[in-house]
Amino acid sequence: MNFKKYYKYGLISSSIPLSYLIYKWYNKPKQEKEYTVQELKKYNNFRDGIYVSYKDSVYDITNFVKQHPGGEDKIMMSAGKAIEPFWRLYPQHFPHFESVLKPLRIGFLSDYKQESEKNSVDHFLYEPIRVGNFKYHNITPFNAELKLDLNFNFLTDNEDAYVRNHHPVPKIDDNYLNYKLKINKIEYTLKDLIEKYKCHDVNATLQCGGNRRNELNQIQKTSGTPWGIGAISTSTWTGIKLCNILDQIPINEEKYVNITSIDNLQVSIPISKALNPYGDVLLAYKMNQELLPPDHGYPIRLIVPGYVGIRNVKWVKSIELSDQEVTGNWQRGVSYKQLPPYIKNLKDVNLEEYQTTYEMPVQSCIVYPKSDEIIVIDSDGILTIKGYAWSGGGRNIIRVDISIDDGLTWNQAILTDGKNQEFNRAWAWTLWEYKVNVKEQKKLKIICKATDNSYNSQPEKKEHIWNLRGINNNSWHRVEVKI
Amino acid sequence: MNFKKYYKYGLISSSIPLSYLIYKWYNKPKQEKEYTVQELKKYNNFRDGIYVSYKDSVYDITNFVKQHPGGEDKIMMSAGKAIEPFWRLYPQHFPHFESVLKPLRIGFLSDYKQESEKNSVDHFLYEPIRVGNFKYHNITPFNAELKLDLNFNFLTDNEDAYVRNHHPVPKIDDNYLNYKLKINKIEYTLKDLIEKYKCHDVNATLQCGGNRRNELNQIQKTSGTPWGIGAISTSTWTGIKLCNILDQIPINEEKYVNITSIDNLQVSIPISKALNPYGDVLLAYKMNQELLPPDHGYPIRLIVPGYVGIRNVKWVKSIELSDQEVTGNWQRGVSYKQLPPYIKNLKDVNLEEYQTTYEMPVQSCIVYPKSDEIIVIDSDGILTIKGYAWSGGGRNIIRVDISIDDGLTWNQAILTDGKNQEFNRAWAWTLWEYKVNVKEQKKLKIICKATDNSYNSQPEKKEHIWNLRGINNNSWHRVEVKI
Repeated sequence: MNFKKYYKYGLISSSIPLSYLIYKWYNKPKQEKEYTVQELKKYNNFRDGIYVSYKDSVYDITNFVKQHPGGEDKIMMSAGKAIEPFWRLYPQHFPHFESVLKPLRIGFLSDYKQESEKNSVDHFLYEPIRVGNFKYHNITPFNAELKLDLNFNFLTDNEDAYVRNHHPVPKIDDNYLNYKLKINKIEYTLKDLIEKYKCHDVNATLQCGGNRRNELNQIQKTSGTPWGIGAISTSTWTGIKLCNILDQIPINEEKYVNITSIDNLQVSIPISKALNPYGDVLLAYKMNQELLPPDHGYPIRLIVPGYVGIRNVKWVKSIELSDQEVTGNWQRGVSYKQLPPYIKNLKDVNLEEYQTTYEMPVQSCIVYPKSDEIIVIDSDGILTIKGYAWSGGGRNIIRVDISIDDGLTWNQAILTDGKNQEFNRAWAWTLWEYKVNVKEQKKLKIICKATDNSYNSQPEKKEHIWNLRGINNNSWHRVEVKI
Repeated sequence: MNFKKYYKYGLISSSIPLSYLIYKWYNKPKQEKEYTVQELKKYNNFRDGIYVSYKDSVYDITNFVKQHPGGEDKIMMSAGKAIEPFWRLYPQHFPHFESVLKPLRIGFLSDYKQESEKNSVDHFLYEPIRVGNFKYHNITPFNAELKLDLNFNFLTDNEDAYVRNHHPVPKIDDNYLNYKLKINKIEYTLKDLIEKYKCHDVNATLQCGGNRRNELNQIQKTSGTPWGIGAISTSTWTGIKLCNILDQIPINEEKYVNITSIDNLQVSIPISKALNPYGDVLLAYKMNQELLPPDHGYPIRLIVPGYVGIRNVKWVKSIELSDQEVTGNWQRGVSYKQLPPYIKNLKDVNLEEYQTTYEMPVQSCIVYPKSDEIIVIDSDGILTIKGYAWSGGGRNIIRVDISIDDGLTWNQAILTDGKNQEFNRAWAWTLWEYKVNVKEQKKLKIICKATDNSYNSQPEKKEHIWNLRGINNNSWHRVEVKI
């Protein structure tokens, strides 16, 4: 075995005990043990052992975990599971993984079925390779937020755009032009649509309903991914205006446009949004001038500008007009319903009485500095605080107020990219910055809050926003730094 | 003189000193004194005397003020001024006023000019008779708010609907069908429009931008009428959709629809609002199925549902598409611009950097009980708290939260009239009520706050809303009552 190549690629550190690998290779049991996918799940801790599967083999990685060059926390995400999805995420493993795993093999999966619907691991066989600058929350399904820093841009690079998948990425082999979708029961290819209708570019920010959920968890645990401030990103989407297609269809009692994706996620949007020529709802096939990446809906995604991420359905399969909204969790369940703070469980709650989220409330965040970050100050002692602001429904950001003394005094930030968007078509965020002389300061308690063009403003306390599902947190954003 | 008739009509109380009236009648000066309109203004207090003019005569009402059957405060509004506008407001004076005033005549106005543009009193010659259940703020121009009480209705009676005039009510003699207005330089009669286009009914709440200004004045004085919670009312408006007329016009660079009224008030609305078939902008000629009353824009008013009152231009004269918003105070001045709380004067403020108000923020008010009101409790000890909630842009009210213990605990009010309006076409307010057992309570500190369908909510503190012009106050509404 040529161990040198692992050193060369930086895949395993020089501190990996070679003697251990050699020992395991020569002392593997003659009779291999059988495991089921279900049994494997137990081996996810140091007491029972940490096992993973790759294809039909089971490996004991207990002693390798602490040596993992990518960090213990990353490799522990795969404990008790198939390792393929994670390696797809980190493509640097691919040239080497069989050789590295081989010495650790301890048995095989008795119920391994490649591409089987019954094997939960196999659902995720077609996940794309991800190389974005992410903060990871979950691998299967893939949930990762944008790592925002001092140099974040108005448009997010496609590979960095936050991903909130609910299911595996579907396998779509078709050339995008041959891809078929149904609109009110009539089948079109994407080629048909692109040839028949004019294409439009729309800059739109997508934000997960759960962005900033982690702050709500400080009050009381909510359910869902504990997103920071990065479940948001902005792209130029290119596609056909849905209103231009729907204009051909006579409307009677229909109140909703119901959308179904290939992974059978179903949502509704109000018909008035879809039909409004100023609503800019797109059937988009490009993201920042490239074909959609698989994680963002290849080959076609509904872009509903100004609406919460979930309504922007990826991998669109069909679109129907209806007098009823779709059933199912994403529309009628609790997931996107912001219940009042005083409802602590779902007992006695009639969810039909609560509306799901479409437009989101006015929002702003301090991107730089982060709490407890070592801050960069120029030679004059000036710190540049930076952030983003956005409001649902296309409402323009007209002001961002900043306090550096915990709310005692306030001042106005300078709005930069995004400030000149059309009235009520401000689908993209507005970036802002605020310069402050910190020479005489020891500590800053920074707060930001935005006002949109309907003069709605952010509520002060997260206690008044807290809700079971931890969505729509638009309370004042706070950061504390020492100079 | 037949004094009995004054008693009969209740116009003067039996405590009026007849001897004084008779004394004045027989002892009027032979040489009458001359006053100018300007000089008259000084006589507005008990030290200098309280004079009023009627037509070209000047009367000394100093000794009559305290006897005024309608109250001293009402008659004092006319001190130093022409009395006509006030009498038009209180039509019960008309049969008698000359005989009542005659004994008090002390001179004449040297510069009285009937219907003259130069005589400030005469601008208001054509004010209509007002009989509404108002709280008056100003007579010329007429500003009066709706007196809301326990029994307030979803639709406001025309005579009670709040009035915020900026100028005198213009004199329009035409039959409404012959009334002419220009749309993009083409002249139409109202008859043309009604015959050519379908008419629509729209329930819409109009709210003055300054509603609840009086609460902001508690922090620091703002400028403008100190409205309570009644600068708001709701009507069914009937008219032609502006989008249907504008659909005939090719749109290039135009971004605004600019509207001018007969009294030369000018405002703009964004073209996307005017052209959106779901925006419901009307050229309205009926209010609650009656022709528009003069105070509400006879014969035609632009109704821009979901927008602040000022954009709902009365007495429309012309409508133009433009790439520029109109100049002038109502669009570009400070009047409808909500500056940040930390701007305390207009020095160094570039108003062009601030957007005027179009849509208003989410709002709610406790109508019953009022602070320090004697409250009505049913035999089970139940108090029914009632109020309204509304949000700009047609956003539906999805929840109203009530606290009776100053914000310690909260509960959900029941939404009643208005709760089933179409999505994002909730142009009218939503009424709510909340029943609470007050048997064991001594004092209630009631708060209400609403959430709209974009999950925007009301800010807690009025300190964070305060602004020089005192507009858009949507902080939590609070009422304190003793049981």
